[in-house]
Amino acid sequence: MIDKLVAKIKNLNAPIVVGLDPNLAFVPEHLKKQAFDEFGETLEGAGEAIWQFNKAIVDAVYDLIPAVKPQIAMYEQFGLPGLEAFDKTVKYCREKDLVIIGDIKRGDIGSTSEAYARGHIGPVQVGSKALYAFQEDFVTLNPYMGSDSVLPFIKTAAPEKKGVFILVKTSNPSSGEFQDRLIDGRPLFEHVAEKVNEWGKDRIGECGYSYVGAVVGATYPEQAKAARKLMPNTYILVPGYGAQGATAKDLLPNFNPDGLGAIINSSRGIIAAYKQEKYASFGPENFADASRAAVIDMQKDIASVM
Amino acid sequence: MIDKLVAKIKNLNAPIVVGLDPNLAFVPEHLKKQAFDEFGETLEGAGEAIWQFNKAIVDAVYDLIPAVKPQIAMYEQFGLPGLEAFDKTVKYCREKDLVIIGDIKRGDIGSTSEAYARGHIGPVQVGSKALYAFQEDFVTLNPYMGSDSVLPFIKTAAPEKKGVFILVKTSNPSSGEFQDRLIDGRPLFEHVAEKVNEWGKDRIGECGYSYVGAVVGATYPEQAKAARKLMPNTYILVPGYGAQGATAKDLLPNFNPDGLGAIINSSRGIIAAYKQEKYASFGPENFADASRAAVIDMQKDIASVM
Repeated sequence: MIDKLVAKIKNLNAPIVVGLDPNLAFVPEHLKKQAFDEFGETLEGAGEAIWQFNKAIVDAVYDLIPAVKPQIAMYEQFGLPGLEAFDKTVKYCREKDLVIIGDIKRGDIGSTSEAYARGHIGPVQVGSKALYAFQEDFVTLNPYMGSDSVLPFIKTAAPEKKGVFILVKTSNPSSGEFQDRLIDGRPLFEHVAEKVNEWGKDRIGECGYSYVGAVVGATYPEQAKAARKLMPNTYILVPGYGAQGATAKDLLPNFNPDGLGAIINSSRGIIAAYKQEKYASFGPENFADASRAAVIDMQKDIASVM
Repeated sequence: MIDKLVAKIKNLNAPIVVGLDPNLAFVPEHLKKQAFDEFGETLEGAGEAIWQFNKAIVDAVYDLIPAVKPQIAMYEQFGLPGLEAFDKTVKYCREKDLVIIGDIKRGDIGSTSEAYARGHIGPVQVGSKALYAFQEDFVTLNPYMGSDSVLPFIKTAAPEKKGVFILVKTSNPSSGEFQDRLIDGRPLFEHVAEKVNEWGKDRIGECGYSYVGAVVGATYPEQAKAARKLMPNTYILVPGYGAQGATAKDLLPNFNPDGLGAIINSSRGIIAAYKQEKYASFGPENFADASRAAVIDMQKDIASVM
């Protein structure tokens, strides 16, 4: 799947992943009204609204982008109907041949990580049948619990030709609280980066990159430089561009000299583009067209600094 | 909810939480057969099997214990039908007046943590309605991303009178990989413990304990001593007893001199008790009675060292 991801990034000249994080506040009124008219102001109504919102955006942008990254929290907040919308979204993106990065940030003791891995990127055995539950291609992981919380995911990913992105340096304001603390003279996140490199080094695809990837926030370009160096064959998923404040120039340290090695996420900046002054002329009715325009602008913005 | 939890622990003389982590391998054949006869070897069949398994165990032990801790991964592995079993289990335990600790180990950037918090311990706004999705009383959290990943949960917990348990030192073999690394001469987990104490110190209930709790693995009693000292008013959720290898004596450092301050989890040791030689005479048909006997033995085992 890392080979497919890299091939798509090259073909489209778009190291871009669209974050499908559909907060209800992003969904235009007419879509909410439709859903609430049918299902009421219920969890089902919310699930329907975010599903229709996602579908329209995917239809509008799928030919421009290699991948999507649904953030499962935005679905989980609506309970089972929300997770049904997550499931539908993943399946729909699969039909559109998009690479799907499940932003789930899981991680637990070994046997528990095995269960998460089965549920998201592998088959789960039920009696004599190997069945698939959620069907992402990659998932994001939290490394705080160490190797035995991460390796079950990597082990499950291997035969499925799937992959993972492990949190190294996150984009949020307080990420430094623990991640930047010095251990033997170097910040914790660098030690995590070294581990990610070690976990991934025997798992490199034909594209030259490992299917064990990392997450490094665009909001910290200096730290990205250090992380890039420590993980030369690691694909880096980069959140923080746009709404979180990072600019195209801030992204550069995440890329390798080959112009590859990083994929940049934008969520609100794309899916709620119609709410920005820049795209306001599209109007809420044409929110998906606004998203398409925002993807094109993002692609140009990144290309301009490469 | 911390007051309710502590009152129940005192009344029952049982600082015990039963981990409802229903791997299919734990479910007796007759229950699986029933479920598969009705739904086939499908995700729905698996969901039904683990729900019936949970229900029987809860019926057999609810009067002995203050709390349950469903591990969401074990449900998530079966996709939507699995999560439906999670939802049913939480609601059923609520009917039985058990305190419910959702073992979800979530944590993300602020706006995303807010969504998780809404979904698990708070209401979520849908149009003009404030609705409840999953309805746990406490959730477990991963601190790697720092304050702004944790505080949205604490903020949501407050008006709901709910709470959180934050990973400090986990019970798994590789937990030391990052958690034990020295920062300013002290292991990372101690720095996390200090933060947990800080986050919780203005949030103390009538019982004298904070609704911002911690997770400290029973498999590391030395580290537990240090953590206990740094977080005097923090309730500690302690996994690792039984199947993971820790004994009753290993639990002592987690308790305060008042005999409170810790709640011990056992999952496999209780729910799959009928598979142990000690309880084999119950037979698979009476698996729930075996679980009841195992709870009684666990209560005695812990009381014997206090």
